[in-house]
Amino acid sequence: MHNPVQLQEIIEKAISKIHYPQHPANLYEPIRYIMNLGGKRIRPVMVLMASELFNDDVNIALEVALAIETFHNFTLVHDDIMDNAPLRRGAQTVHEKWGSNTAILSGDVMMVESNKHLSKVKSNVLKPVLDTFNATAQGVCEGQQLDMEFEQRSDVSIDEYLEMIRLKTAVLLGGAMKLGAIVGGATEQNAELLYNFGENLGVAFQLQDDILDVYGNPEKFGKQVGGDIISNKKTFLHLKALKLAQSDEATLLVAENLSPETKVEKVTGLYNKYEIKQLATAEMEKHLTLANEALTSLAVEDQKKTNFRALVQQILEREH
Amino acid sequence: MHNPVQLQEIIEKAISKIHYPQHPANLYEPIRYIMNLGGKRIRPVMVLMASELFNDDVNIALEVALAIETFHNFTLVHDDIMDNAPLRRGAQTVHEKWGSNTAILSGDVMMVESNKHLSKVKSNVLKPVLDTFNATAQGVCEGQQLDMEFEQRSDVSIDEYLEMIRLKTAVLLGGAMKLGAIVGGATEQNAELLYNFGENLGVAFQLQDDILDVYGNPEKFGKQVGGDIISNKKTFLHLKALKLAQSDEATLLVAENLSPETKVEKVTGLYNKYEIKQLATAEMEKHLTLANEALTSLAVEDQKKTNFRALVQQILEREH
Repeated sequence: MHNPVQLQEIIEKAISKIHYPQHPANLYEPIRYIMNLGGKRIRPVMVLMASELFNDDVNIALEVALAIETFHNFTLVHDDIMDNAPLRRGAQTVHEKWGSNTAILSGDVMMVESNKHLSKVKSNVLKPVLDTFNATAQGVCEGQQLDMEFEQRSDVSIDEYLEMIRLKTAVLLGGAMKLGAIVGGATEQNAELLYNFGENLGVAFQLQDDILDVYGNPEKFGKQVGGDIISNKKTFLHLKALKLAQSDEATLLVAENLSPETKVEKVTGLYNKYEIKQLATAEMEKHLTLANEALTSLAVEDQKKTNFRALVQQILEREH
Repeated sequence: MHNPVQLQEIIEKAISKIHYPQHPANLYEPIRYIMNLGGKRIRPVMVLMASELFNDDVNIALEVALAIETFHNFTLVHDDIMDNAPLRRGAQTVHEKWGSNTAILSGDVMMVESNKHLSKVKSNVLKPVLDTFNATAQGVCEGQQLDMEFEQRSDVSIDEYLEMIRLKTAVLLGGAMKLGAIVGGATEQNAELLYNFGENLGVAFQLQDDILDVYGNPEKFGKQVGGDIISNKKTFLHLKALKLAQSDEATLLVAENLSPETKVEKVTGLYNKYEIKQLATAEMEKHLTLANEALTSLAVEDQKKTNFRALVQQILEREH
């Protein structure tokens, strides 16, 4: 078995070997660009990790891992258009660099490229692989739609928020795990357990993101602490405070007449008053517990689960 | 065997029975909308026609037909964003009605829906179906990219134009034919012949479009005759005239200082002088001949080819 760093290297090498057509250059150059912007390759690493639980030959899962990474990058390209985002991983976004039309079209081709990778799996797992991938892709799109809609709504409930992050973020981690399990030859039950593991890990990861955006150590966090507060983003913390605070306090959450520093300070004060961090942490831990339970039920030798337990621990302890 | 009208009815009925999720409503409503705007359903009908050559049960090809029609409508949704088009089949385009972000995302989900339809074919043809579909989808995207690039270029050659319409339009007709053949149980050779038939038919269809835009009977054409001339569109006729005319005459093709009526009249005069219509018709007929040759080589009873020969004749004779 490989450790996560080795798996990441396998992914990087495989990505560097993908052959995209030369023409039309402006269609494929953005794909090479976004695929090589780096990142931790968490999702494809998860595919390989899951597969290796059931099959020693990690290469058996490589095309599925590439499909998942290509699909993930496709969603970044299209989401960045919708969010009007200028930067991605510190570099220009595709639509900033090549224009929205090319970004739409290159994204579309990436979806095709994902499906081309998928079609290369062994025929005995092709159908379940496609079903799992399509359900995953559909969920991710639904999550993005909900995320956009929530920006325009003032009555988003916490359950709705949790469902949105499940779809937008967690379903892809669950799908990556399940796809790896399927190509590795897992039983249906083990594949489902790994799906549950990945999905709960994903929800926990996003909740931790929400927490760190307010309570992260500025030196380690890497971006402005309080960014979500300044932009009135409807995070778990925001929605929980909206629910618990008095109505006159709650207006602070969407105040437009304060300097960014003052707003961050005052909203953080409100969060502290209602112990929002603790509540968010409890919700996160609930999902990590569910992830751990799925892992415990998984019918593989305990020793093989080490990397998976480490993932849970990393989320619990991460500071950025 | 069914005739094309019956096949269209089968498609309409199948489309009306597709079940899309209810939520998020704003993601799926645009899909129902575009899928039910009508149209002649040429591509899915071609899938069924091709399948029926080899298999009496037309239902065997229905999911592939739906995949092709969904994919085609997905390209319309995204192309309309890129082309900034307000109308599609006389109705508001999706991005006009719901905004570009929803149009991007609903289009993305339509691509997933196409793949879901495809995944329902029998396992023994799943892999070739996916390979053909993915190659087709990739070609269509490449064609759209070339089409956009040509708008910005002044040195497009006729060969480049023919390659662009092959990719943007004809590959999908070829793909529809080939996919129908595969699910119907055709030999590889017959499937390739039907691909060639569909692709050449598609190129001929687009060339006839170019011709009718200038020489169509205004009463039958249904849109403004000369629209391509007014918008300086780089059609086969435009590019051929650009090549054959004297340089002082050629400036007329992109003139901005004339009234639309005058420009249409003068450019048509130029086309007539260099017999552009005849040259375009010859190119179209070349592709119809290739289509007919593929049909002749096809190893099925001649009587079964009637509908296919009728398609060729329809393109030759169509006036709108």
